[in-house]
Amino acid sequence: MIACGDRLEIVALSGVPIVERGDDVAGLAEAAVRRARIVLRDGDIVVVTSKLLSRAEGRFVELPRVEPSERAVALGATIGKDARLVELILRESTHVSRSARGVLVVRHKLGFVVANAGIDASNAVPSGAAAGSGPWALLLPEAPDASAAALRERLERSSGARLGVVVTDSFGRPFRLGTVGVAVGVCGLPPLWDRRGESDLFGRPLEQTITALADQVAAAADLVAGQADERRPLVLVRGLCFDACDRGAADLLRRAEEDLYA
Amino acid sequence: MIACGDRLEIVALSGVPIVERGDDVAGLAEAAVRRARIVLRDGDIVVVTSKLLSRAEGRFVELPRVEPSERAVALGATIGKDARLVELILRESTHVSRSARGVLVVRHKLGFVVANAGIDASNAVPSGAAAGSGPWALLLPEAPDASAAALRERLERSSGARLGVVVTDSFGRPFRLGTVGVAVGVCGLPPLWDRRGESDLFGRPLEQTITALADQVAAAADLVAGQADERRPLVLVRGLCFDACDRGAADLLRRAEEDLYA
Repeated sequence: MIACGDRLEIVALSGVPIVERGDDVAGLAEAAVRRARIVLRDGDIVVVTSKLLSRAEGRFVELPRVEPSERAVALGATIGKDARLVELILRESTHVSRSARGVLVVRHKLGFVVANAGIDASNAVPSGAAAGSGPWALLLPEAPDASAAALRERLERSSGARLGVVVTDSFGRPFRLGTVGVAVGVCGLPPLWDRRGESDLFGRPLEQTITALADQVAAAADLVAGQADERRPLVLVRGLCFDACDRGAADLLRRAEEDLYA
Repeated sequence: MIACGDRLEIVALSGVPIVERGDDVAGLAEAAVRRARIVLRDGDIVVVTSKLLSRAEGRFVELPRVEPSERAVALGATIGKDARLVELILRESTHVSRSARGVLVVRHKLGFVVANAGIDASNAVPSGAAAGSGPWALLLPEAPDASAAALRERLERSSGARLGVVVTDSFGRPFRLGTVGVAVGVCGLPPLWDRRGESDLFGRPLEQTITALADQVAAAADLVAGQADERRPLVLVRGLCFDACDRGAADLLRRAEEDLYA
């Protein structure tokens, strides 16, 4: 299935304006594709950062308006983190996995295990924010799979091509330093590529056989996107072959009871 | 630094023969580049699977020749895994992180935390193996950073271009299903891309600022390579901009004492 061709292209769709609440994401994507003089074709994957969706959904929270719970105040004091931000992290999550100085690793309501519930407190400011307002935090999008599906539907309708859409974020991980792009929303392509039915060059069944396809697409796109840079929130990945698939990003999540590190 | 261009190309260098002990890896890579009618240029990254290097280094072990220790026998019985394979895993590692039915997650001598010490017991057979021999296991390469450096030196000398080399494997990970390509050897490009000196669009310092550059290159290359498929062990990644760097893959490793999941 994968790499039916020998070549992938990863193209940043440049010139996207900074997105504001209520902006039409599909319309922005269509304009970005046109601007890049690209004609979408079957098998193209449009990759969009979670931050773009969060901004379009108006997922900003002004920290001074957050009333921290007792638990958030205590935890914030223990780990040296703003209690209002801790409160937001706890509201966004179902379980605290680990805590340490300045960091809370949690299971997000969407199922991902991620530091600080994926909340962006670095460069999130809504345009039109009053002088002296903030600091602001930007939550993950409400329903990334649904957003991916909506974007896919619009782009397929306008292009006539069969597409995939991946919503990405940059996550840290155990054991290794640095963030990598991961898929937090998927539509149109299989999140996992299961090769269990296939055999190796010598005809033996493959042992290590499930590839995190959508996560690798996210990582590849992150090389040109730069999660921190809102000027490259859309990337086209061209050259993969896949069967149309309606599974979402939850396919990528290990169940807690089967996770040696939960 | 990253994506000075808007476009990456990921090209599988096809037609590489199955590699045997003692084969000249750089010569094979040069031939594969020529066959693809590619002229290497500054900033190109040559990605090679660890399996290719392991085969060239003759890292095969025939399981019937492995004498398991008492510890390996006991551990194998506990987790339901061949004691001879457990013995090899323990010899290749410095620490057992987790064990469960059929799997040992260890810290490899090279520093990576990886299931089963990265030993490939699925499709590893040396050519010329006698009928009825085996089963065989294939260990990770002896010194992937040094192999990357040697390959880079040869390719830079023959091409005149400034190159990067990444040696990849496919690892599973906590929290998420499916394997992803990771860098186990690096030379010529920065393993991590540290943006701490940079600021966001609004001039504030970035918070989440270190990207696992070489791991993302490995993941992107894995999309066309397919770790289980020895027919695509070489991939070219073109279009990244980076400063020449002599750091190795150890830069990507979180120190155990700073790892919340060690």
